[in-house]
Amino acid sequence: MTPYELIRTKRDGGSVPPEALGDFVAAYGRGEIPDYQMAALCMAVFYRGLDPLELRAWAETMLHSGATLRRRAPSPLRVDKHSTGGVGDKVSICLVPLVAACGLAVPTVVGRGLGHTGGTLDKLGAIPGFRTDLSVAEAGVVLDEVGACVLGQTEEIDPADRRLYALRDVTATVDSIPLIAASILSKKLAEDLDGLVLDVTVGSGAFMRRREEAEQLARTLVDLAADMGCPAVAWLTSMDAPLGAAVGNALEVLEAVELLQGGGPADLREVTLRLGAEMLVLGRQAGSIDEAERRLEAAITDGSGLARFHALVRAQGGDPAVLDRPAELLGPLVTTEVPAAHAGVLTAVDTLAVGLAAVVLGAGRTRSDATIDPGVGFTVRRHPGERVERGEPLVLVHHRPGRDVDEVCHRLAAAFRIADQAAPTLPLLIARMEARPR
Amino acid sequence: MTPYELIRTKRDGGSVPPEALGDFVAAYGRGEIPDYQMAALCMAVFYRGLDPLELRAWAETMLHSGATLRRRAPSPLRVDKHSTGGVGDKVSICLVPLVAACGLAVPTVVGRGLGHTGGTLDKLGAIPGFRTDLSVAEAGVVLDEVGACVLGQTEEIDPADRRLYALRDVTATVDSIPLIAASILSKKLAEDLDGLVLDVTVGSGAFMRRREEAEQLARTLVDLAADMGCPAVAWLTSMDAPLGAAVGNALEVLEAVELLQGGGPADLREVTLRLGAEMLVLGRQAGSIDEAERRLEAAITDGSGLARFHALVRAQGGDPAVLDRPAELLGPLVTTEVPAAHAGVLTAVDTLAVGLAAVVLGAGRTRSDATIDPGVGFTVRRHPGERVERGEPLVLVHHRPGRDVDEVCHRLAAAFRIADQAAPTLPLLIARMEARPR
Repeated sequence: MTPYELIRTKRDGGSVPPEALGDFVAAYGRGEIPDYQMAALCMAVFYRGLDPLELRAWAETMLHSGATLRRRAPSPLRVDKHSTGGVGDKVSICLVPLVAACGLAVPTVVGRGLGHTGGTLDKLGAIPGFRTDLSVAEAGVVLDEVGACVLGQTEEIDPADRRLYALRDVTATVDSIPLIAASILSKKLAEDLDGLVLDVTVGSGAFMRRREEAEQLARTLVDLAADMGCPAVAWLTSMDAPLGAAVGNALEVLEAVELLQGGGPADLREVTLRLGAEMLVLGRQAGSIDEAERRLEAAITDGSGLARFHALVRAQGGDPAVLDRPAELLGPLVTTEVPAAHAGVLTAVDTLAVGLAAVVLGAGRTRSDATIDPGVGFTVRRHPGERVERGEPLVLVHHRPGRDVDEVCHRLAAAFRIADQAAPTLPLLIARMEARPR
Repeated sequence: MTPYELIRTKRDGGSVPPEALGDFVAAYGRGEIPDYQMAALCMAVFYRGLDPLELRAWAETMLHSGATLRRRAPSPLRVDKHSTGGVGDKVSICLVPLVAACGLAVPTVVGRGLGHTGGTLDKLGAIPGFRTDLSVAEAGVVLDEVGACVLGQTEEIDPADRRLYALRDVTATVDSIPLIAASILSKKLAEDLDGLVLDVTVGSGAFMRRREEAEQLARTLVDLAADMGCPAVAWLTSMDAPLGAAVGNALEVLEAVELLQGGGPADLREVTLRLGAEMLVLGRQAGSIDEAERRLEAAITDGSGLARFHALVRAQGGDPAVLDRPAELLGPLVTTEVPAAHAGVLTAVDTLAVGLAAVVLGAGRTRSDATIDPGVGFTVRRHPGERVERGEPLVLVHHRPGRDVDEVCHRLAAAFRIADQAAPTLPLLIARMEARPR
């Protein structure tokens, strides 16, 4: 099948033989298929989708375009979690050390923030000295030593996805569910996992704003993971408000540490415990979700989770002591309050607008080559369903002295909707799906 | 509107502001929009189409990407004809001199043959010395002198279409009706016409095999021409058999000359007179189709059409005397007959198969850089609806001495369907459409 015939077959809604599609993607990864043919194919896939065999061939070919974190026997079972992104989402920073403290290996390939969503890479990168550019070989050493490692998508891992994502980004072919699923799983399953938990966010701050789309993505992800040999669980979680109170890279690390110390916001704790419990069950460290949650709570109470986080920071080049000196971690900041214009009930937070306000503040980026200020951010004081009084601060803006934050405050004020009566809200944990290899 | 936003808008079925689309196409023509973004847009257009304002902007921008045949006042009205292609279609070679002899200017940009269809450029190029690579300036001189000129799509005319067609050809985005219409009219209307006749072929030897598609293309073409300021008439014509008897470049020129001398096959004469009459009416040289056909017949009878063809050949570097010496024009040939396997009625000719047999013989090409033999070809002896006897020649193959033509004969024999009873056939002239500028 020639590239032309392959594009035409997909264009007309036919099935492409999986080997032919794999060869096409592999040739693209090697630079032997030109961008314009891949762009035409991606647009055809946007309309026609990929069937399960095509999707598996696509994702597996991308996975094998680069290095993988092959394990040296014998080693503990490996699990990981991936989120489709949100605002204030520091769940990975909590989960990775907690799950590692419970006896599983947690290698995690993470991304940078882009647009209104933050990225774990930027958050951990806010810790001075913390290296996010580990090679695959270095990551393996850290993983063996600490039981966890965090690495960015370097040239080594999934280079075909890097090239393809850059192309999709400029050809309006990013928001195709099969292409999203292949991109996520070709990176995550390069970690050679025994189980994967997927947090598919939905709502005003999520990539998927509509529940049906989020469900479709979650279903596609768990089925594809299972087809690729990895048991998977997906949770649809609400991103109709920032998760927790902190928004901003170093601020979110500090909030994650708070959780590991037994504190932290209730919503963050709820999501962390549930997703972590799914990881423990997938990794056969607990027989039930209840038992798994108790183990995670114990790892908080006995300090083993926090100790594991300190070990991870140390192994990747950072000094965990800085986590106890917020002023040093954050740098000089002043705080400006965004007050409620009137009393009532907070009914909704336009979480996309909060994320974009963070970009304006300097905590995020809209271009992949932009730099960020790791210390600035927000503290969100009120969540949907809570009562507010006129003039009370809804959110605190932590910014550099002398910086004009009028636009940031204006955007934030407009993002918080206050009404006379409470409106129904979705639960934080909306729906669960799973799939296991046949 | 950024290129990304434009692609995304079209992808989602929205209307792109015409100026933005024109800017995009112009930038592509200048090499400032990369192929991959245009490929993604073309695939989105394949699914979503272009609305009339978008289509006009697209076609006009392509037209203005290169030189146009601007006229020097005062000059006769200008008309031209375009066919979407077929097998044995030498109508342009008949029409151009006849219509010019009736007082109109006929500048015609023509293409080369590709796949199973021939091209007027190759046919006239079979005349020794005939230059098909005239510059726009040279073409203007020939047009003023002869009242007609024939030129290929050089780098001067519509370079954006050249670049775009090459891209569409490798990204499975050729068969999109709006993109076909924009490609045709951006070239044809670069001739600065007062009227255009479109011959949209339909059937087994046509680009459009189904009538509904052909009607949609014809409607799109006349409406777009009118939107671009040019009155247009389209005829759907049947390509369920080769047109006339001759298939092959020099052979078709000789058959066109026969028609100009008062002979030639009836089907070729019918199409030539009707399309030519439409051109005369559009160019206000006749008040009715009947009157126009009488004028064309007179130009045959009085020899003025043939004289005009001789003048055209001479002006473009050829020697018209060679048209009277077929042996010299064709070169050494031997003829092999393809006999009917049994008696009956010829019900259908797979005209695509006949065109592909011509490619195998060397009269056509499947790759744009392949060379052709201008002298070889076929004489088709029987047309659908005619009675055939067992063993009588259905078609004659004119080939080089010593050349093995078994495959060609086998393909031809399989292309002619003989049954006991006649089957219904479409008329040659199927349906007419027109549009005038508002």
